[in-house]
Amino acid sequence: MATVDHLLTIEAAQRAVSEHVSPGRAVSVPLGEAIGRVLAKPIVCDVDYPPFDKAMMDGYAVRAADVAETPAVLRIVGQVAAGHEAAKRVGAGEAIQINTGAPLPPGADAVVPVENTECVQDGSAVSVSVAVPAGKHIDPAAKYVLAGSTVLSPGVRMGPAQIASAAAAGAAEISIYARPSVAILVTGDELVDVDAQPRGAQIRNSNGPMLRSLVTQAGGEVVDLGVVCDDKSALTDRIREGLASDVLCISGGISMGAFDFVPEVLASCGVRIVFRKLAIKPGKPVLFGIGERGTRVFGLPGNPSSGFVCFRLLVRPALATLSGRDERRPVEIAARLIGDCPATKDRQGYSPARIAIDGDGSVTVEHLSWHGSGDPFGLSCANGLIVRPPGLPKAVGGDTVSVIPLEWF
Amino acid sequence: MATVDHLLTIEAAQRAVSEHVSPGRAVSVPLGEAIGRVLAKPIVCDVDYPPFDKAMMDGYAVRAADVAETPAVLRIVGQVAAGHEAAKRVGAGEAIQINTGAPLPPGADAVVPVENTECVQDGSAVSVSVAVPAGKHIDPAAKYVLAGSTVLSPGVRMGPAQIASAAAAGAAEISIYARPSVAILVTGDELVDVDAQPRGAQIRNSNGPMLRSLVTQAGGEVVDLGVVCDDKSALTDRIREGLASDVLCISGGISMGAFDFVPEVLASCGVRIVFRKLAIKPGKPVLFGIGERGTRVFGLPGNPSSGFVCFRLLVRPALATLSGRDERRPVEIAARLIGDCPATKDRQGYSPARIAIDGDGSVTVEHLSWHGSGDPFGLSCANGLIVRPPGLPKAVGGDTVSVIPLEWF
Repeated sequence: MATVDHLLTIEAAQRAVSEHVSPGRAVSVPLGEAIGRVLAKPIVCDVDYPPFDKAMMDGYAVRAADVAETPAVLRIVGQVAAGHEAAKRVGAGEAIQINTGAPLPPGADAVVPVENTECVQDGSAVSVSVAVPAGKHIDPAAKYVLAGSTVLSPGVRMGPAQIASAAAAGAAEISIYARPSVAILVTGDELVDVDAQPRGAQIRNSNGPMLRSLVTQAGGEVVDLGVVCDDKSALTDRIREGLASDVLCISGGISMGAFDFVPEVLASCGVRIVFRKLAIKPGKPVLFGIGERGTRVFGLPGNPSSGFVCFRLLVRPALATLSGRDERRPVEIAARLIGDCPATKDRQGYSPARIAIDGDGSVTVEHLSWHGSGDPFGLSCANGLIVRPPGLPKAVGGDTVSVIPLEWF
Repeated sequence: MATVDHLLTIEAAQRAVSEHVSPGRAVSVPLGEAIGRVLAKPIVCDVDYPPFDKAMMDGYAVRAADVAETPAVLRIVGQVAAGHEAAKRVGAGEAIQINTGAPLPPGADAVVPVENTECVQDGSAVSVSVAVPAGKHIDPAAKYVLAGSTVLSPGVRMGPAQIASAAAAGAAEISIYARPSVAILVTGDELVDVDAQPRGAQIRNSNGPMLRSLVTQAGGEVVDLGVVCDDKSALTDRIREGLASDVLCISGGISMGAFDFVPEVLASCGVRIVFRKLAIKPGKPVLFGIGERGTRVFGLPGNPSSGFVCFRLLVRPALATLSGRDERRPVEIAARLIGDCPATKDRQGYSPARIAIDGDGSVTVEHLSWHGSGDPFGLSCANGLIVRPPGLPKAVGGDTVSVIPLEWF
């Protein structure tokens, strides 16, 4: 893709970014540390599962033929609990008390649930009131998995259920994709730390904390390069440092001002600029480039809401791909609009919204009023972004609109 | 609510649990550690925002009256960048070069974007081609927030946008709800660790790793009590230890077998049993009780899928409430069924499913075949649970069904 300086569509930008990312290197971690990560190598079960014919009810192991006619009275010849093997076999007219999870004793071919039995003859015998066919209430050995079978394939995200599967399969260490390293550099002479009191022309650095948490949430490893003043030499040093990471995010300094040195300094550091402006609102000035060693460089707008939107649309999908997840672009779901949503002009619009789930399970969304991209508090109440293509009239209550969910809901 | 031993509906069970949980104690943490947590005290902004009349474009600070007729040529008398204050005021016929984020110099009342200007007279003057009204491209001081205003209210979950707001407001430390402590105790003579080779009647402990990751994912602090044999005395000791936590989860030992000592031992430790069985499938045997010091005790089925479902339906909502989140029960969304989904009998059914988002943004769901609750691999491919009330016929493709999403999608 050639270097472009005109307004690119978000789809073209996402395609351009996706050409420069692929799953990173695989690393081995203990199973307990794998939550949320993506499997890089298959997990193969090293045992049959279950490894033996297993009782699935608490009751009595019997020969089905002995209880074909009920009531049937069987002599209790033993007891077998989960984790133990029966000391005896079940002969004709005999039963062994059994617990869920225990191996079926030899000779038995079914389990009668305790609910359908009664102890008789001072506990030496059991009266069975309901017949069971052979095989009933038993999981036969290897019912679920044969030793040597793959139980989890590469690309699977390790949630609690997948962790349980891996544990059953004996995978104490598993191979997952490494977290991409993401250097974060915030530019601006006006910025002071959150714990400092801004004076005169200063404001607090809110982009640094925001970007660090966005990267963490997206599964990246933060390399914090702090704040740099609008000074070419200092900026050059930090950018060179940032190019050692898989991804470099720079906040601010990419616009048209006299002190917006980022594009110039990036070029001097050997970064090839792929695009500089997108046809989206907020977020028009956003830069993507590729360093000499392949570092993906994102120049994000300094306005917090614009930076947030650009991160979600471009950086997060890149981090997902690098981490092994298949999320080329954010998921958009259809939702029923409550209230109005403004018209769009020449750029695709992203505006803060509140998603909710109705009593009938349908998804609704409400547009939140805000003061525009300069408002650092504009996204505080949002859990979604309404997406509207350019040139659309105002949407009204009841219309279906697209929304990107920002959190679990 | 009285102790019950019959099959309770899930709604009644969730209500019963919710009566025993409320948001926990507040703790103070550095803002950088707050991601995903819930705010316990309001965040008040300590400055006006913006703190000064702020340029929103790169260009020239001017007096609007001077550019009412264009082209207008103004003398450049200075430059002001973000983070700095102008050394001069803008007089009649004058302009000061300004960067986005810089304070408006005294005397000026508008900003002309650089795109609508041209430097003339060897750079000593600027020719303005488009008029601007007073106030244009300026965010006046306190436009967004007045010092002393609340910018984030208790109950808000701290995502990256909320962290940016808190940073702008100067909240270096914030008050959030503490993570509930959750003791996890797995019972069963048959269990060996994931890195051991099961022999004879043994299987691997998959419930321990699963529950630890479920608790972590739900925002709880894991207190791992390991595996205990089916022995009353050992079980008593560990349960007493577990009752020191906010929540105690016990896996296995709650059914009707001869070695299912958990209910009896809980009673002997002073735990009042609230319910023991639910009308759900999987997960019928599930216990909830309250310790003498208020510990919420959950006895979960030993079958991994049953334990998973019961955790999601009962324990996770309890941990959410304790953490300050308002999630009394899992969210259910309406989805269009692809393929069939089996009939339900006398209990509400939860079955593994794959949720996807269609190109038009609508939610679809596919029922995944599985071998039932004894299958430790049955949920490996699931990212949702289809919920079906009791007594329903088979659902077919195109029907709308309810689904609980298990992960980000």
